[in-house]
Amino acid sequence: MANPQLGDMNSDEFRIYGKQLIDWIADYLDQSDRYPVLSQVLPGEVKAKLPQQAPAVPESMEAILGDFNRIIIPGITHWNNPSFFAYFGITGSMPGVLGEMLSAALNVNGMLWRTSPSATELEEVVLSWLRQMVGLPDSFFGVVHDTASISSLIAVAAARERLNLRIREEGMAGRSDLPRLRMYTSEQSHSSIEKAGIILGIGRSGVRKIEVDPDFRMRPDRLMTAIEEDRAAGWLPFFACATVGTTSTTSIDPVAAVADICAREKMWLHVDGAYGGTAAIVPELRYVLNGADRADSIVINPHKWLFTQVDFSAFYTRHPDIVKRAFSILPEYLRSNEGDVGAVKNLMDYGPALGRRFRALKFWFIVRTFGVEGLIDRLREHIRLAKMFAGWIDASADFERVAPVPFSTVCFRAVPNNVPANKLNELNTHLLEAVNATGEVFMSHTVLNERYILRLAIGNIRTEEKHVVRTWELLRECTKKLTSSE
Amino acid sequence: MANPQLGDMNSDEFRIYGKQLIDWIADYLDQSDRYPVLSQVLPGEVKAKLPQQAPAVPESMEAILGDFNRIIIPGITHWNNPSFFAYFGITGSMPGVLGEMLSAALNVNGMLWRTSPSATELEEVVLSWLRQMVGLPDSFFGVVHDTASISSLIAVAAARERLNLRIREEGMAGRSDLPRLRMYTSEQSHSSIEKAGIILGIGRSGVRKIEVDPDFRMRPDRLMTAIEEDRAAGWLPFFACATVGTTSTTSIDPVAAVADICAREKMWLHVDGAYGGTAAIVPELRYVLNGADRADSIVINPHKWLFTQVDFSAFYTRHPDIVKRAFSILPEYLRSNEGDVGAVKNLMDYGPALGRRFRALKFWFIVRTFGVEGLIDRLREHIRLAKMFAGWIDASADFERVAPVPFSTVCFRAVPNNVPANKLNELNTHLLEAVNATGEVFMSHTVLNERYILRLAIGNIRTEEKHVVRTWELLRECTKKLTSSE
Repeated sequence: MANPQLGDMNSDEFRIYGKQLIDWIADYLDQSDRYPVLSQVLPGEVKAKLPQQAPAVPESMEAILGDFNRIIIPGITHWNNPSFFAYFGITGSMPGVLGEMLSAALNVNGMLWRTSPSATELEEVVLSWLRQMVGLPDSFFGVVHDTASISSLIAVAAARERLNLRIREEGMAGRSDLPRLRMYTSEQSHSSIEKAGIILGIGRSGVRKIEVDPDFRMRPDRLMTAIEEDRAAGWLPFFACATVGTTSTTSIDPVAAVADICAREKMWLHVDGAYGGTAAIVPELRYVLNGADRADSIVINPHKWLFTQVDFSAFYTRHPDIVKRAFSILPEYLRSNEGDVGAVKNLMDYGPALGRRFRALKFWFIVRTFGVEGLIDRLREHIRLAKMFAGWIDASADFERVAPVPFSTVCFRAVPNNVPANKLNELNTHLLEAVNATGEVFMSHTVLNERYILRLAIGNIRTEEKHVVRTWELLRECTKKLTSSE
Repeated sequence: MANPQLGDMNSDEFRIYGKQLIDWIADYLDQSDRYPVLSQVLPGEVKAKLPQQAPAVPESMEAILGDFNRIIIPGITHWNNPSFFAYFGITGSMPGVLGEMLSAALNVNGMLWRTSPSATELEEVVLSWLRQMVGLPDSFFGVVHDTASISSLIAVAAARERLNLRIREEGMAGRSDLPRLRMYTSEQSHSSIEKAGIILGIGRSGVRKIEVDPDFRMRPDRLMTAIEEDRAAGWLPFFACATVGTTSTTSIDPVAAVADICAREKMWLHVDGAYGGTAAIVPELRYVLNGADRADSIVINPHKWLFTQVDFSAFYTRHPDIVKRAFSILPEYLRSNEGDVGAVKNLMDYGPALGRRFRALKFWFIVRTFGVEGLIDRLREHIRLAKMFAGWIDASADFERVAPVPFSTVCFRAVPNNVPANKLNELNTHLLEAVNATGEVFMSHTVLNERYILRLAIGNIRTEEKHVVRTWELLRECTKKLTSSE
């Protein structure tokens, strides 16, 4: 720089600290179990250690990295720990770190094709790869969004647009010509479906939740009845979501049966495969997406179970034109020749956000580094470990499994015979707290049929059999302690 | 790993290639003008070089990085090039790369406080820093979203929720008790405001665009008239957006006057300072946010003009409770003790997305590396360069400036006296194409009062006077060529 006071950080320093960080990251991931999984700081503890005002003058990278280790790290819940089994246990991977480094360095905004053709075209290519990997036909057009919440919101918005009720133009409020709109999803579906309904003005009462069978799968007969009731009452049914891998139990809705209903009722079918959809890359699990080829849209999140850094949610639709109609606005300052003549897709047209990170790069690095077979092997191993754990639960008199295990998540609870039924929720609440407090493992919970349930979700690239074995030990030890002191 | 076929990439390899990439990034940013600014590939060219199917077996990092250089780089439009003056010229910075590396390595999802307390608390801290830096009072609560499009959508959703019309519960369609809803923004405001209206079911006709004055600022008198007309016609006005730094000309709406109107009319005031708001860190530009302290919400994008990697949009509101009411859903599987007792904020509650990247880290690195004074110096330099360029335009008989330059963006066009007025749009279209085709510089355009206008937006951390000088040379040379051949 002409003026050494301006410009970027000194690049020699960047080289030194960048390489230090590479070593730090390698060490961190090599020993990703050296910290407690669940952060043990108290509310406000991290904040209290940080200055309340920004520094007026530059600080050294030495100081910043020192604070990172001293203040930030203790407040991290380590999703990379091989014994992170909460929510959906997810990990990024080392090739993903390399991909994100380059994305951060290039720092392109892929809103338009021309603002980096590679960002748009690589996204098209890797989403085509993923589509083929899970066995979807090429009638599906794919685009990357940050989260499944946004992908599902896009699905509902497109369904609303397809009604041709001039909602884009005229809105929904104060119109006597509009019927009440209804969308359907199961009692077990993710909260983001209801959230999409709220945001899009469908309202909570416009989101009808369909009962599930004893294995937590949406009941198509109940869906059909609901639609009939609603039509009779003047509602307009327009959207149904079938979930492949629900959040609590990873149950799989009968997609094909729901697809039949949607076809007959002219409703948009969205398949929420955010978690379970990725599993379809495994040949013997390909079946989980049966019927999804007839969906209008599908979401699959490689940032859940394909070792891809957050955020990376893959949205597929057979109706990109309708999605575009629901979202696209083209002000003059975003026009381009190649866009005007339709020679390219400008990906800003397919969702709510204008700015777009170059997310395809990390996924490209990951798929190539592991190869599809390598990814399949890793998912298979997680499934094997989950089935092994489920077997232990099934064989134990002190525990019970409460849902099938189609993927790598096991739902269970302790049911020792010296604890009365009306004390089991309390026991399992304390059991989860006790296990998580060891710092060795982190699980989360759900509630099913008013029972407090523990979930073991295996999805970490570093999880080995020994981590699952140890978790089982801890569960039994903690249960013993809790029940003997009672 | 017990099974060497599984697990992550070999960490020794990660160290080797990670360090190679650090050197690559340092070289790339040190010589960020070595590639054409605007990518010169043709539509489909990148895609054609990539395999149509994912590789079945692992490929070497050597091969991946080779393809990155050979295939991806030619399709990059280099936002880091010091002569990138299109849209809003933005750059990340080296400390931002370091921050993103660590975010990618930790790969936490900050949806809940407990899923990484540091992610939530550092976000609170750095957003408090930024709030103070731009001079907003501490009654504003801040949270980071991906883009201003999402931040503005949140603002409109919160405004809709504040109406207490039971829209969250009952939705908007088919309700005879709801009035038509109207929101206001200027003719010059960003397309994302209208997009928010479309998504939220307000509809395009519910978004009334207010006329601007000759300097492209919203006219409060026209806003007032519009509201009166609308109320008389049965509309319910509920939201207004005032923009600080509009996209085409960076004009500044009279925020204080709009705030008066919003207070009187009980409308939600949103200030879109995505670009211009960052400038308020410069003491002599602090005034651009005058009146914004009375806004209900404000968006400021450090990923535009504070050297922060995309994505990082800061959303501030005085009503976090209303935002939460508009968005929060708490399924059992996301409950936590500390959330239940209100000891912490779970940031998933304040927007449409559940999953949240650890974005605060990069901003923390950047502010500390440069210091607030360092950031101010860099913005001042950009403003100096823009005023210098504007001065050349003003002094030239062959060019005219078409808008004030409050920040670092100059709107102008060529008006050589040998070209008739009705040919000026054509000339300027060709001029922009010619200048961009040199590969030395990239500018974008807009249309103002039916005139085709060129924009020079200075925001790159590496931009120096020589780059602006060269751009001016190119503009004059290309104009000469175009007009002499005519």
